[in-house]
Amino acid sequence: MGSIDANPAAFAAFGAAGVDDGFQPLNAEDVRSYLHKSVDFIYDYYKNVESLPVLPGVEPGYLRRLLQSVPPTSSAPFDIAMKEVREAVVPGMTHWASPNFFAFFPSTNSAAAIAGELIASAMNTVGFTWQANPAATEMEVLALDWLAQLLRLPASFMNRTAGGRGTGGGVILGTTSEAMLVTLVSARDAALRRIGSDGVAGITRLTVYAADQTHSTFFKACRLAGFDPANIKSIPTGADTDYGLDPAKLLEIMEADVAAGLVPTYICATVGTTSSNAVDPVGAIADVAAVFNAWVHIDAAYAGSACICPEFRHHLDGVERVDSISMSPHKWLMTCLDCTCLWVRDTHRLTDSLETNPEYLKNDASESGTVTDLKDMQVGVGRRFRGLKLWMVMRTYGSAKLQEHIRSDVAMAKMFEESVRADDRFEVVVPRNFALVCFRIKPQGAMTEEDAEEANRELMERLNRTGKAYLAHTAIGGKFVLRFAVGSSLQEERHVRSAWELIKKTTTEIIKGEM
Amino acid sequence: MGSIDANPAAFAAFGAAGVDDGFQPLNAEDVRSYLHKSVDFIYDYYKNVESLPVLPGVEPGYLRRLLQSVPPTSSAPFDIAMKEVREAVVPGMTHWASPNFFAFFPSTNSAAAIAGELIASAMNTVGFTWQANPAATEMEVLALDWLAQLLRLPASFMNRTAGGRGTGGGVILGTTSEAMLVTLVSARDAALRRIGSDGVAGITRLTVYAADQTHSTFFKACRLAGFDPANIKSIPTGADTDYGLDPAKLLEIMEADVAAGLVPTYICATVGTTSSNAVDPVGAIADVAAVFNAWVHIDAAYAGSACICPEFRHHLDGVERVDSISMSPHKWLMTCLDCTCLWVRDTHRLTDSLETNPEYLKNDASESGTVTDLKDMQVGVGRRFRGLKLWMVMRTYGSAKLQEHIRSDVAMAKMFEESVRADDRFEVVVPRNFALVCFRIKPQGAMTEEDAEEANRELMERLNRTGKAYLAHTAIGGKFVLRFAVGSSLQEERHVRSAWELIKKTTTEIIKGEM
Repeated sequence: MGSIDANPAAFAAFGAAGVDDGFQPLNAEDVRSYLHKSVDFIYDYYKNVESLPVLPGVEPGYLRRLLQSVPPTSSAPFDIAMKEVREAVVPGMTHWASPNFFAFFPSTNSAAAIAGELIASAMNTVGFTWQANPAATEMEVLALDWLAQLLRLPASFMNRTAGGRGTGGGVILGTTSEAMLVTLVSARDAALRRIGSDGVAGITRLTVYAADQTHSTFFKACRLAGFDPANIKSIPTGADTDYGLDPAKLLEIMEADVAAGLVPTYICATVGTTSSNAVDPVGAIADVAAVFNAWVHIDAAYAGSACICPEFRHHLDGVERVDSISMSPHKWLMTCLDCTCLWVRDTHRLTDSLETNPEYLKNDASESGTVTDLKDMQVGVGRRFRGLKLWMVMRTYGSAKLQEHIRSDVAMAKMFEESVRADDRFEVVVPRNFALVCFRIKPQGAMTEEDAEEANRELMERLNRTGKAYLAHTAIGGKFVLRFAVGSSLQEERHVRSAWELIKKTTTEIIKGEM
Repeated sequence: MGSIDANPAAFAAFGAAGVDDGFQPLNAEDVRSYLHKSVDFIYDYYKNVESLPVLPGVEPGYLRRLLQSVPPTSSAPFDIAMKEVREAVVPGMTHWASPNFFAFFPSTNSAAAIAGELIASAMNTVGFTWQANPAATEMEVLALDWLAQLLRLPASFMNRTAGGRGTGGGVILGTTSEAMLVTLVSARDAALRRIGSDGVAGITRLTVYAADQTHSTFFKACRLAGFDPANIKSIPTGADTDYGLDPAKLLEIMEADVAAGLVPTYICATVGTTSSNAVDPVGAIADVAAVFNAWVHIDAAYAGSACICPEFRHHLDGVERVDSISMSPHKWLMTCLDCTCLWVRDTHRLTDSLETNPEYLKNDASESGTVTDLKDMQVGVGRRFRGLKLWMVMRTYGSAKLQEHIRSDVAMAKMFEESVRADDRFEVVVPRNFALVCFRIKPQGAMTEEDAEEANRELMERLNRTGKAYLAHTAIGGKFVLRFAVGSSLQEERHVRSAWELIKKTTTEIIKGEM
């Protein structure tokens, strides 16, 4: 692509244009026609995605070689765009929807969620204030209260309690990172007020804490909020706590910090870490935090969904003593991206830091104090109608099916785990808590620890090159470990079995030294 | 709704469940069926939205009285959810898609964009790294480069220049607020390094600047990033500059700050303010900033779209000397929410602050340095495939139709403006720059300034109560002013004419003192 001056095509129409009333970008007939074509595409995609390589074999820059580098001047039939999607986009996709996808965490999805997202994108409303869209605001609040009930969150986190409106509430955000950021900022500002800081001068004294297994995005969110890098404490964990945060160690570090004149401000506890699904002990952490008046946030992005099942709910025990909790239905609750739910016990602590009140958004409803303006619980102002898809998932499937979905994934992961344990060449590195199995080829015979490291890397690379499975890795206790995350929405037991057969076969080849 | 303990229905299924392989939330037949029903709904919605009250007459809490407060245990046919959407959600919506919507800025949309969003939500990929989805990453980069060409941004802002890969680049974010936040953080960190700050201790010396007409979300973003409230400078503007930032005043304030030992760090210039569409002089501001080595960001959220037309492009003159620019196709470029494009001249300045590198995301492509990992240019990690809808809009309509769309809206706004000017009872309060007209009933006869204020408030309230038009207001020079924003995607000239007739009729009633 050259500079614009060398490629003036994009501007060729200027001068010839004039106003033409005939262009109707949202003509209902066109919308219906384009969407029907899209639905046909999606139907074919879901029917065929199993046979596509999960991880594509494309090289960086591949797409630019297939599509034009200069934007077209003229309009083209929608079929042209669809043809390019089929021929250029699909072959370069990493297919998260594939039943052979076992990497990261699955982005689970459902017919009801996609329908909800579609309707929301067509209505295209911006519910920054209640008045700007009462239905979108109230639907979001309702969906959050429903999900809070499924999670058995205490009434103090709900928008509406039996006794009327409480101080708690929730908001749907884009990602966990945003949930961390807004709560960090709220805790920061509260701590600055508490220590009587002159403006932000006191920020250098504020400290935040999390286990070293906490998602990297937490440490980034702390930096975004202006915390001093030296005061962002990553607390070492080990096999002794299955990589969960040790509350005694936390207490010790916080006490030392206070002795050094620092101000413990925020602790992030994770229920189901990305690396290995470790679980920090929520209740014990809340008890430690209470000593210092520090904010406790629970990041249950992935495993929070499992907590709708009573047999997993104990991982949230103590939640009634924390300040905020977030989880992402876009991970494991069949709600397409993006949808992260944040609940706080005292919404005023968020709005104190996040409220804005420009003249052009003022309205009687907001000033009455009887409504929730969700813009005051997030980073930005604009917001999609995300509550619709989340509500549609719960409304259509009901809690029994949602629980069944979680249990089916866990059962498949358990089956995989048992297969791994039954094969002497492998080890399960940490206990499986949910639907993620962390395993590796263990040193055996003449194989050293270094050889095993190399064999595991080789295993992952060979598996991923086949296109028949995609696994990601992590490091646990300094070792290279494969992550097998069950739960892609099209996945069935046969896919897990096939992947396991492929893993065994490939391992045999590697151990035999074959190519 | 009581507490969960009082309403145990949500958990009733536990114990009876067991794993049932029969639940297929993403079954292709169901997806097709649900989506066809959704498309029928959307078709009907667009056909009828004109006749629905733009602003609903519902009271806070209305939705909870219509829908069940406890999540269902059992699944229900999708038709049940759709029935509740029609009967409970639609009547409580503020219809941003209505052609009678003239509030805020329109959230423009198109058949191609909705189709792109639908396909993206079905594929449901998470392209945080190139490897996690090469096609999604490269499509986003391509769409940004296309749009940069339409905007005639200098090659230095593009991902791929004629000479190969440069240092510039872009990313699609959710909102302008996020674009402001990530650039503020990058500028903050660079300034801290420059002054040799011990950690963040130097943050109390860093200052940021914007005209008082700048969107409130900018001042909020500054607080999120930890800038000292006292150092967030809102520079007064007035009628003498049509409420644009005065570079001489900016220079004076920055010089005084430097003299006081402060460090000018960031300036936000707006092209098309939300309040009145004022335009800050980009080039002159960049010249002032250069004296202090301060970061300049252009917020062209709304009016940036107009700059694809050569006759509006001059508003961006000087962009080659700024550090970053953002604009939101979800506002005026027919791309459904959310889609904010951010371009920076030096992506390393972003990634220096925003990069993370956890073990589980490491891969050969990232380590080769030949690819863009878009997670390192945003707040969070997860990200939707937003590039698809933006590319589809440009691919399908082409630049000529996009320009025609802008010009048609501007022509309608001009028509409205001329009507207002031709009626002695009204005044146009600031010059119309794009498709927003700021007007009010002016004091006349025995009407005092206070009476006029009251009459304008009354006018807006009466108009909005009719359900036949929805206008928002702002304050300009201390006066209550009505904003008439043209451009909702279903809008035609007849809707603007009808709204004007309604405004005239209502004004006559108000001036006559009628109810």
